[in-house]
Amino acid sequence: MEVAPQIENIKLEDGTNTTADDDDFVDPWTVSSKSNAGVDYDKLIKRFGSSHIDDALIERLEKVAGKPVHPMIRRGIFFSHRDLHTLLNMVEAGKKFYLYTGRGPSSDSMHLGHLVPFIVTKWLQETFDVPLVIQLTDDEKTLWKDLTVEQSMRMARENAKDIIAIGFDVNKTFIFANLDYMGRCPAFYQNIIRIQKCVTFNQVKGIFGFGDSDVIGKIGFPAAQAAPAFSTTFPFIFGNDKLPVLIPCAIDQDPYFRMTRDVSPRLGFPKPALIHSSFFPALQGAKTKMSASEDNSAIFLTDTPKQIKTKINKHAFSGGRPTLEEHRELGGNTDTDVSFQLLRFFLYDDDELERIRVAYSTGELLSGEIKKIAIETLQPIVADHQTKRKEVTDEILEQFMALRPLNYQINMQKKK
Amino acid sequence: MEVAPQIENIKLEDGTNTTADDDDFVDPWTVSSKSNAGVDYDKLIKRFGSSHIDDALIERLEKVAGKPVHPMIRRGIFFSHRDLHTLLNMVEAGKKFYLYTGRGPSSDSMHLGHLVPFIVTKWLQETFDVPLVIQLTDDEKTLWKDLTVEQSMRMARENAKDIIAIGFDVNKTFIFANLDYMGRCPAFYQNIIRIQKCVTFNQVKGIFGFGDSDVIGKIGFPAAQAAPAFSTTFPFIFGNDKLPVLIPCAIDQDPYFRMTRDVSPRLGFPKPALIHSSFFPALQGAKTKMSASEDNSAIFLTDTPKQIKTKINKHAFSGGRPTLEEHRELGGNTDTDVSFQLLRFFLYDDDELERIRVAYSTGELLSGEIKKIAIETLQPIVADHQTKRKEVTDEILEQFMALRPLNYQINMQKKK
Repeated sequence: MEVAPQIENIKLEDGTNTTADDDDFVDPWTVSSKSNAGVDYDKLIKRFGSSHIDDALIERLEKVAGKPVHPMIRRGIFFSHRDLHTLLNMVEAGKKFYLYTGRGPSSDSMHLGHLVPFIVTKWLQETFDVPLVIQLTDDEKTLWKDLTVEQSMRMARENAKDIIAIGFDVNKTFIFANLDYMGRCPAFYQNIIRIQKCVTFNQVKGIFGFGDSDVIGKIGFPAAQAAPAFSTTFPFIFGNDKLPVLIPCAIDQDPYFRMTRDVSPRLGFPKPALIHSSFFPALQGAKTKMSASEDNSAIFLTDTPKQIKTKINKHAFSGGRPTLEEHRELGGNTDTDVSFQLLRFFLYDDDELERIRVAYSTGELLSGEIKKIAIETLQPIVADHQTKRKEVTDEILEQFMALRPLNYQINMQKKK
Repeated sequence: MEVAPQIENIKLEDGTNTTADDDDFVDPWTVSSKSNAGVDYDKLIKRFGSSHIDDALIERLEKVAGKPVHPMIRRGIFFSHRDLHTLLNMVEAGKKFYLYTGRGPSSDSMHLGHLVPFIVTKWLQETFDVPLVIQLTDDEKTLWKDLTVEQSMRMARENAKDIIAIGFDVNKTFIFANLDYMGRCPAFYQNIIRIQKCVTFNQVKGIFGFGDSDVIGKIGFPAAQAAPAFSTTFPFIFGNDKLPVLIPCAIDQDPYFRMTRDVSPRLGFPKPALIHSSFFPALQGAKTKMSASEDNSAIFLTDTPKQIKTKINKHAFSGGRPTLEEHRELGGNTDTDVSFQLLRFFLYDDDELERIRVAYSTGELLSGEIKKIAIETLQPIVADHQTKRKEVTDEILEQFMALRPLNYQINMQKKK
């Protein structure tokens, strides 16, 4: 006779449902806000129980990094964190860590917003000279969307090429897609089972809002996104070492890692540290995030200069005034103006950005003019990406996805 | 914004909970009955919605097999089936099929009762010359019991050696343990995801009695036991062929395959056929089944002749009468007498078994005497197993567990 073991009830750091707010709705699958300025991130930090990335933390980060932080951190695009101080303590004490980020491949083409976590991840990798694992959750996309296993797997490979084109170092980066990697490394499934033994349905119900009519694949999936936060999921990189991890991601992914952080100590691992980015707005405005399934909401990495021009001119929500007179008199609203927001993400000259902000806010710069600046900023970025993307052959992809040791200077003390 | 796909509600063949009966309790983890004669199998067949293996089916099986059926089938130890007629139709039409069975490795040592499904599986494999896959659910045991991943994996290997010692042909048999095989063949996880996309929490709640406080590993696990019923889970054996499968198993495993049979047509596979065995009684009587976790309930495959003798003499429930006089006058009860039941499973001389039945029923044979026969029947079987088990080296184990094509005559028409 077999009896179920007593599984202790885990008390979550945040017992609330992620979807609870009158104005904003945020979970890993849906983001929406009633405000044109987008989600209220102060409220979100409170609800999620994370911490602000404040000036003191940025200063400390710059001190440890030995250089200025990436503009996306300085400008508050990465605005929230968990345990970044603890991680920096470890770095200063000469401890090792690694980076983990990922993407759900739900379309063949990625859009500009998808680049955001990867850009900062690349900066962190170069700054701290640490190994990086990138997960493509093609299993998740099969479970949540009307996609077959084969379709999701193909999209994972296409997306991986876009990610490689961002410029990651093949010697320090391992990219894997769940539907493939699960069948190539027993340690992955073994860690998933360890995690799945620690988490009850009640808990995923509370964290993700799952219900009785959800398929069992969804209910089990969070463990697959949690597992890469345990370094033993990659024995060919880390051996049996239980290393700390830093996870850069958009804040809607935080529920997965709240669950992970709860499981970590029970499996003898340090809790993962996180830095969270805000959402990249849809062209129509920050009420929703840019989405690959809404063609006109997104600037794709495959768009031509002409398409970019047309999309921004036609669809980018303007914070300008209804008439020229009013605009000159009252100025535009940079908080809601999507063109300005695009520049905030992708124009890295701080002085230039400030000049544009002031000019637009005072009415000196018109809606059409700020759109023109946004277009001319993004066109070369996308074109450059396309050039690099073309160079990513299947062979290069296989190199990134091969199970192998990574070449990195992981002991920070040795660096000194 | 991502929206969950519409998952159609599956209507199960049997909507009832498997645990529903006043006298008997049967689910994949617990078997108990209020009766010393054990579970009422007629009732169970009705509740599960399976079919009796009746004389007509046995006759047909013998005709197709071209030889008498195995004593365990003839004696009604395998008493229930699903779609065996359909499978025999296919065999007669020259269609291919394969066998799938398995075991949950919850102890280092297997007991006599664990042999039952394997003995009939071996008979079926030899009779029909078909490939066989054997699953060791070490993941299940980690999830359900107080066992680590490492402990379950070790037990899986130990149990595999016992299974090999039964005499399976290495050229026709693939043995795999989930915590290992999942990481060696992507097709396994891919099929699990396909299955998990078809089954809701509501459904596993109804079939297995899972609740909100169960861990998510348990909730997802049934898909891992279902997947080997889909031939594409073994691409190195079957390529992309979607072959029919016959699953010999104890009837408590039927809930898994009711779920599987419901999913099969949605994934384009034929529904698996099954033959179900009754439970092997505990030495204390048929109210529970023999269990490896209750030392005195079981005759282990590692027991010495002396241990077997002591256990049967001391613990085997007797269907005899309280006094010699009463016994001589009224005779013993072979339905409840565990020694007789052991002979029914393992003494294959029909005339001899009938002679013992009559002699015991009429009081000619005494309790101590039938125990002696049982002891002398089982001692050489267990000793012989131990001899063969010793010959199973790690190297032989690796051969059985290696991913490879199997060598078998799968097209029945070619045999003629």
